[in-house]
Amino acid sequence: TEAPVNLPARYKREIPEGDSRLRIVCSDCGFINYENPKVVVGAVVREGDRILMCRRAINPRHGFWTLPAGYLELNETTADGARREAWEEARAKIEIDGLIAVYSIPRLSQVQVIYRARFAAPGIEPGPESLEVGLFAWDEIPWNDLAFPSVRWALEHYREVGDAEHFAARTNPPGELGNF
Amino acid sequence: TEAPVNLPARYKREIPEGDSRLRIVCSDCGFINYENPKVVVGAVVREGDRILMCRRAINPRHGFWTLPAGYLELNETTADGARREAWEEARAKIEIDGLIAVYSIPRLSQVQVIYRARFAAPGIEPGPESLEVGLFAWDEIPWNDLAFPSVRWALEHYREVGDAEHFAARTNPPGELGNF
Ligand SMILES: [Zn+2]
Ligand SMILES: [Zn+2]
Repeated sequence: TEAPVNLPARYKREIPEGDSRLRIVCSDCGFINYENPKVVVGAVVREGDRILMCRRAINPRHGFWTLPAGYLELNETTADGARREAWEEARAKIEIDGLIAVYSIPRLSQVQVIYRARFAAPGIEPGPESLEVGLFAWDEIPWNDLAFPSVRWALEHYREVGDAEHFAARTNPPGELGNF
Repeated sequence: TEAPVNLPARYKREIPEGDSRLRIVCSDCGFINYENPKVVVGAVVREGDRILMCRRAINPRHGFWTLPAGYLELNETTADGARREAWEEARAKIEIDGLIAVYSIPRLSQVQVIYRARFAAPGIEPGPESLEVGLFAWDEIPWNDLAFPSVRWALEHYREVGDAEHFAARTNPPGELGNF
């Protein structure tokens, strides 16, 4: 067993007693670093027929366009996380009014919880992780410069649900795993 | 800063450079153990008017009743995880046909993704984490011996949606945080 990438050599991948999967274990002290899937929370925030998007100032996919979204923090609800990310990335105050989708990106061990939202207050500007932010009508969306496949999924699923009061949450399009 | 519970003393909680939150950091080698919220996946599996439940053989809440559910594994979709848990806990082969809810339990940093499902094959029996498993009509459900508040939420939300083909996913009941 080799040390996992980016970790000191004393960390090995092994199956702890009573477990059935490989974990990262410290061969000095036995500390088990359970790696867990990560939760991404985000929102399609719309004003009239326009949708809020952010151009990424960070890797991966620096310079490409995304929806305001990011990792859920400890002790946070998914809705609170989506509101926080809209603030951090676009200085937008938003109000959630529906769950658009729960996507799984198994290669990245990601679960994405994507809400529909409106602006709770006017104004957007780039936060530290955005190069620029903007509101785009459907035909103005930078389709060729989207950061991730799931950005397209969320936009298309939002397009399906529109302003419906009740709608079923979507999942990955058939056969798509979100790899990029 | 004290060592987090259950970790050797060289692990301290501190805010790494460029970060804004407390993380668990090894004071010997600087390894940062990012703790992340955990994803629980599960299902309300029904046959006619009866619902599959499992009596827990493990802590927490040993001996209490729950839905088949557990932690999502790495590289797994949420739907695959829910199917795996139904097999592990009740030896049930299930077919998912809707998303009942996405709950947040912020004190436990849990996101719960709960599906509606049917049996894809007959037969249930207790897996290693269940003392017993059973199918319960609504009035037979062991309401006073449920393991977690979110078990009740999921049952009640299933009751609302029934066999509807399309329905909006539910979230925590107003004001409820799922503490137990
Ligand atoms: Zn160690
Ligand atoms: Zn160390």
